[in-house]
Amino acid sequence: MKIKKPGLVSIVILLFVFFFYGNAFSQEKKQIVRMAKLVIDSVQLESYNAFLKEGIETAIRVEPGVLMMNAVYEKNNPTHVFVVEVYASDSAYKAHLQAPHFKKYKMGTKDMVKNLELIDVVPISLESKLN
Amino acid sequence: MKIKKPGLVSIVILLFVFFFYGNAFSQEKKQIVRMAKLVIDSVQLESYNAFLKEGIETAIRVEPGVLMMNAVYEKNNPTHVFVVEVYASDSAYKAHLQAPHFKKYKMGTKDMVKNLELIDVVPISLESKLN
Repeated sequence: MKIKKPGLVSIVILLFVFFFYGNAFSQEKKQIVRMAKLVIDSVQLESYNAFLKEGIETAIRVEPGVLMMNAVYEKNNPTHVFVVEVYASDSAYKAHLQAPHFKKYKMGTKDMVKNLELIDVVPISLESKLN
Repeated sequence: MKIKKPGLVSIVILLFVFFFYGNAFSQEKKQIVRMAKLVIDSVQLESYNAFLKEGIETAIRVEPGVLMMNAVYEKNNPTHVFVVEVYASDSAYKAHLQAPHFKKYKMGTKDMVKNLELIDVVPISLESKLN
């Protein structure tokens, strides 16, 4: 019995399939890590912080793709807020933007945020024993 | 039988004891939360990041009082590094400064760090599902 060898065309097709699926998969699974630098209206600080805290705690609890959200403000300059955010993937990030708790935060704080800078960052080490 | 009431002096002493112990306790247990903004020598970036990563991972593993250490660098400006650190108490922070892995990091990177700014920060929310 003669065993038929796979033809060149089949091999090329297989390589293409592996390449495109592999690429789509790695794109999908690539974490999004970002830092937001915000400046908040000083007279609305307490209200802003409450909105942010609620938004973060809900996102972490209900969204499996929201992996980390750390928000702090400068002690001597409390209008300056920093948030470091980690999403499991690009689609997890897009899902977060559509989540009702994110929309509530975004709408509720739109007149409190005087400046917002979003910076793509690369993690060196993200370690926590707090949660 | 006459039951002796506690005198004023005893009450005042008790109040002092509660006040000073309570205060010392809450001071001790107060978390230290800080952000370090660093600028690193561009030609030594890779080496710096390796030192920082090792320092953080060792501190988190061996120091019970080091509760969180998140380090990132800006994707478009990789010499700019941000670290958010949480220590369980002031004494945990002081212990960290004396730890051999911290001294190794500090000595090893002293010619790599072009600028270091330490900023006391107040947490709004520190949530992670990564660890």
